[in-house]
Amino acid sequence: MLSKKQITFFNSLKLKKYRKKNSLFFAEGQKIINDMIASGLIPKYIVTTIENLSDQYPTIELITAKQNDLNKISNLKTSTDLFAVFEMPENYIDFNVLNKNLILFCDNIQNPGNLGTIIRTADWFDINQIICSDNTVDAYNPKVVQASMGSIARVNICYVNNDDFFNKIDKNIEVYGSFLEGENIYHTELKSSGIVVIGNEGNGISENMLKYITKRISIPSFSKNSLTSESLNASIATALICAEFKRRTEI
Amino acid sequence: MLSKKQITFFNSLKLKKYRKKNSLFFAEGQKIINDMIASGLIPKYIVTTIENLSDQYPTIELITAKQNDLNKISNLKTSTDLFAVFEMPENYIDFNVLNKNLILFCDNIQNPGNLGTIIRTADWFDINQIICSDNTVDAYNPKVVQASMGSIARVNICYVNNDDFFNKIDKNIEVYGSFLEGENIYHTELKSSGIVVIGNEGNGISENMLKYITKRISIPSFSKNSLTSESLNASIATALICAEFKRRTEI
Repeated sequence: MLSKKQITFFNSLKLKKYRKKNSLFFAEGQKIINDMIASGLIPKYIVTTIENLSDQYPTIELITAKQNDLNKISNLKTSTDLFAVFEMPENYIDFNVLNKNLILFCDNIQNPGNLGTIIRTADWFDINQIICSDNTVDAYNPKVVQASMGSIARVNICYVNNDDFFNKIDKNIEVYGSFLEGENIYHTELKSSGIVVIGNEGNGISENMLKYITKRISIPSFSKNSLTSESLNASIATALICAEFKRRTEI
Repeated sequence: MLSKKQITFFNSLKLKKYRKKNSLFFAEGQKIINDMIASGLIPKYIVTTIENLSDQYPTIELITAKQNDLNKISNLKTSTDLFAVFEMPENYIDFNVLNKNLILFCDNIQNPGNLGTIIRTADWFDINQIICSDNTVDAYNPKVVQASMGSIARVNICYVNNDDFFNKIDKNIEVYGSFLEGENIYHTELKSSGIVVIGNEGNGISENMLKYITKRISIPSFSKNSLTSESLNASIATALICAEFKRRTEI
């Protein structure tokens, strides 16, 4: 049975500080957890209200819990019957292949739902590497994990200091940034590899990043109304850019 | 000054029941509120912590409040300095123009953030009409309003019974639905008008809607990994579909 001590410990993993200290994070719900296990992540603990789950997870220490107690560690509004704690994968950047792939760079993304959705979308579009500025929300934040729908197990996510990273990469790598006055993405040349920088939700790409952008693109607004929304949600913009890069490679 | 009675009343607008009864809803933050006013919505009340705002809103009843009290009515984690209550616009469906435009139909969208993002994205792509099944989350839910970033003031949103609506529309209108086995959206013919049905986050397009779909499309996953994310977020899928329709009209 789930002990009080365990409840305290699992709850501590809602905070980045304790996730980092223990190198652990958690996910909730059978679909997401099974998806993450299938993708190679190994749960350290599984807490569940379901009887006889040991057949399904023979090698994992199962902790049974009453719904009431599971609710105490859940981060969801409606808690599910399965809660799993995973070890953080040891992600790293392979600088040798950076110039061969399309990569996303999250520059100060703050909303966990946005980062999770960006990870899920990247996975869909076969983008396996996401680099985050060190002020971007933690990818192992429970809300990011849930919004990623398990994709966090398949996408390599690394945190860097922006200047350190961009000073280290091959100078031939195209670095794309989206700006209102950029070239219409549907009419401009796009390479099949490069880094797409995704700016902060409210402020866009940060000032000190501008010098690293080698190509300014824009997603055209099709509205004739001058009062139309002046921007797109960060994860929507990311998806539209990824789709256009990938659509081109297919044709 | 903001009275206790007003605090109770404004708080009641967090619930659909009271929004409907009073035909009122609220938005928070100067950017969104000013955007909605510029688009023609008239606030009935503005609550603010800022002194001397009457120059900026000369015709509106301003209620001053201490931050402490404004926090009591705010629906945001970090409340802002401006809170406005608007009258709900009287939206209706013009069946005579339905066949001339691209329209979105939300079939049981549950997540307020998703609906808000869909509204914002529709506005960007010059889609001015969104029809929602009557089990879709309320568009005037505060989370929807905030995620729409003011676009809710420019997009006509109506709630219908699915069968009533689809039995009433012109039989020549193409009704698009996204399915895993649908035709690749990047290679199939798309008309410049029609209705795009957006399915529920977990279950997709509902069973009883299938008979109304006249064309099944799909957004291809570009991943070679069989374990890739099996779906996209509902608002992401919507944006990718809208972009492809609109991109075609531009070429």
